[in-house]
Amino acid sequence: MSRFTLSASAGDQALTSLAAFHRWWAGHSAKRFSVSRVPFAELDGWYLDPDTGNLRHDSGKFFSIEGLRYRTDDDRDWTQPIINQPETGILGILVKEFNGVLHCLMQAKMEPGNLNTLQLSPTVQATRSNYTRVHRGTLTRYLEYFHGRRRGQVLVDVLQSEQGVWFWRKHNRNMVVLVTEDVPADKDFHWLPLDQVYALLRVDNLVNMDARTVLACMPVGPPVRVDPAAAGPFTRAVWNSYDPDAPALHSRAELLSWITDCKVACEWKVDKVPLNQVPDWTTTADEIAGGPDARFRVIGVAVGAPNREVTHWKQPLLEPREHGLAAFLAKPIDGVLHLLVQARAEPGLRDLVELAPTVQLPTVPGTPETVAFAAEATTADTTRIRVDSLLSEEGGRFQHALTRYRVVEVGDDFPPAIPESFRWMTVHQLSGLLEHGHYLNVEARTLVACVHSLR
Amino acid sequence: MSRFTLSASAGDQALTSLAAFHRWWAGHSAKRFSVSRVPFAELDGWYLDPDTGNLRHDSGKFFSIEGLRYRTDDDRDWTQPIINQPETGILGILVKEFNGVLHCLMQAKMEPGNLNTLQLSPTVQATRSNYTRVHRGTLTRYLEYFHGRRRGQVLVDVLQSEQGVWFWRKHNRNMVVLVTEDVPADKDFHWLPLDQVYALLRVDNLVNMDARTVLACMPVGPPVRVDPAAAGPFTRAVWNSYDPDAPALHSRAELLSWITDCKVACEWKVDKVPLNQVPDWTTTADEIAGGPDARFRVIGVAVGAPNREVTHWKQPLLEPREHGLAAFLAKPIDGVLHLLVQARAEPGLRDLVELAPTVQLPTVPGTPETVAFAAEATTADTTRIRVDSLLSEEGGRFQHALTRYRVVEVGDDFPPAIPESFRWMTVHQLSGLLEHGHYLNVEARTLVACVHSLR
Repeated sequence: MSRFTLSASAGDQALTSLAAFHRWWAGHSAKRFSVSRVPFAELDGWYLDPDTGNLRHDSGKFFSIEGLRYRTDDDRDWTQPIINQPETGILGILVKEFNGVLHCLMQAKMEPGNLNTLQLSPTVQATRSNYTRVHRGTLTRYLEYFHGRRRGQVLVDVLQSEQGVWFWRKHNRNMVVLVTEDVPADKDFHWLPLDQVYALLRVDNLVNMDARTVLACMPVGPPVRVDPAAAGPFTRAVWNSYDPDAPALHSRAELLSWITDCKVACEWKVDKVPLNQVPDWTTTADEIAGGPDARFRVIGVAVGAPNREVTHWKQPLLEPREHGLAAFLAKPIDGVLHLLVQARAEPGLRDLVELAPTVQLPTVPGTPETVAFAAEATTADTTRIRVDSLLSEEGGRFQHALTRYRVVEVGDDFPPAIPESFRWMTVHQLSGLLEHGHYLNVEARTLVACVHSLR
Repeated sequence: MSRFTLSASAGDQALTSLAAFHRWWAGHSAKRFSVSRVPFAELDGWYLDPDTGNLRHDSGKFFSIEGLRYRTDDDRDWTQPIINQPETGILGILVKEFNGVLHCLMQAKMEPGNLNTLQLSPTVQATRSNYTRVHRGTLTRYLEYFHGRRRGQVLVDVLQSEQGVWFWRKHNRNMVVLVTEDVPADKDFHWLPLDQVYALLRVDNLVNMDARTVLACMPVGPPVRVDPAAAGPFTRAVWNSYDPDAPALHSRAELLSWITDCKVACEWKVDKVPLNQVPDWTTTADEIAGGPDARFRVIGVAVGAPNREVTHWKQPLLEPREHGLAAFLAKPIDGVLHLLVQARAEPGLRDLVELAPTVQLPTVPGTPETVAFAAEATTADTTRIRVDSLLSEEGGRFQHALTRYRVVEVGDDFPPAIPESFRWMTVHQLSGLLEHGHYLNVEARTLVACVHSLR
């Protein structure tokens, strides 16, 4: 029985109740923070490179807005702006046993692009610039447990990708570190067992993207202390889906081979280009914007944040035009829940193709506009919708980037024949892949975390 | 008990004896093939691009010789020519049960760069150009079992890197496919169980690189039908090293975290550049050659080969100046053999860093000249040398590229403190990583295959 599995069924072994969490959370009002739009000329430390048109930081660090060109397999070229952030950061959750059960040290953290400013975040969320102190801020709290000589026992440590339509080959280090020593929770931090964190995933815009991806990488086994007779067939199918010995539609070898097939089949040619070589996009005084088909723009903001490493700063943010949709169709097969996974190409991913939700919107420019299974994913039939949360993408880079995350059950009438770029997989199979990087994209990882809330 | 494990202890269940193999092999004389050097101007279908200086094929397919520039973490720049082959090929071994034991369909295949022309190769070794028939040759034999509707049961299918000092981000698909139907062995093919193939790894320049990497990716468990009492302590330690339950010095989580550490720590900046922007290298009528420190040159050859898809052709080859050395130091720890693995950066690898032999020579330009453990690896003490084979790298791209592969046992006097870029790992742990791509470099994979010959 792993520590994670016990924590996922902590129940009344939790240090404090969810009600206590909500009281603590309510005490962290967002009023102390201010975020306002400013023109690029007022982004201190940032400049538009006259040669390339790229938006860069004086230090050469942090990130830059550059151009991306890709040629799809039908020999058509596509271009767009892209965030280039070559540094690998740490997204780390510190865990410690209380009452014999792991608790996660979660943080109330502000990010300028968050709709509601403050979200529940990992213990540590640090770019390399953060912890090498390029911006001369105060030291990131608790970082010493993740990096350097005082590091605790590493339970999870894997490089995972982020949005391949917005980032150039970015990945971050997803870490979980166990400590046994006494670690006081600072005022912006709270200890929660996994089942409480899972429950909070059902609250809109509360658990941030960085927390979700780390949660997805924690391997959990079938629930303990549960009574199958007391559960309905869907819940029993969820529980069975965590069982390594439960029958799966495809073997692990078959799935790995299918993934290899899909990665090899995509032969897109991708390159970074100067932003001024991206047609149809223009940089004005206060935005980098495309034509009517553009799915985002880049803006500048000024931030005041007393409890961040730096209390005032200005930075660019990428602002999507619409909400996204990420949905897993789910179906019990022989009493074991299977999720319908899609192999999806995104030009900024290192391998181009990773596993994605069944439906992920918007589509990637250059791929078919017709989206398989869109009707099922957007159903209004509440008896089928098992998860339905509106969650935020990384507020440190994206302005009000919201995605609707859904898990939708489909019935026996669902067609058994599915397109070649889709496969049914169990939660146990997805968890096994998450031990390694670059198998599941960040939206699929959020959904895996959401599936844990169904346990 | 997996099929691979049984095949690795086939013994007298083999279809034919090793003596019969050697007679068959002797019947495949290299006399029918001719390989001779030609100037670049006589390489039909190839040209030196006047703008870039790159050596390319008219079709835009196959591969090209371009330039590579990388900046190491000490901010120094390094440049060299590099082979760019963006296609992902298939290296596939067809397996089938005879006498209840898996046998591999191995091929006597010529490659122009092989010292001895003919080597023992996978069933299928096909670039995408091969099987999409860019060069208008005859169809690759047995390819239908690996690709398309007649594909057999896929047991292994993983993308693995090749030499990161010679190739730009190349990886190939390492496949093992099981068939149950009747498959006649053509005259250049021979069925061998795994233990026979392992034994052949001890013969110099016989089993080719492509076969070795696929062999390494086949997971084998502890030997069956062996008597521990009849073996010495070293052999027992080898056997224990395959046991998932045997005590290992480091846990899997610790090793994965160490690998992540090493990948993140290397921040080299790498780019392809035109070959004419590579200083100190010059292209003459018949070679692309560097200064006195250059470790290879590029030449052209003309080939006549009656049993290849195309019977006559001309192509460039990369010719290393010296033999390489790849050695694992090995040590029984608590009765379980551990191999000392190095995290090594090579500029052409996608992740820059992969796991490598303890000692791998030549060193990569820009990294320290002083090689840890070189004395142990080059020992003349034959009681310590457990494997010592001179094997060829891919003869389709490299001219007479030979590497000495060694497994060298070290004693209890070996220092317990080792540098941070090294870790002791069991065979079982290495095999687990080989289920996924880009963990072990190609030299380490050859050595894993060689370790199997110690079973």
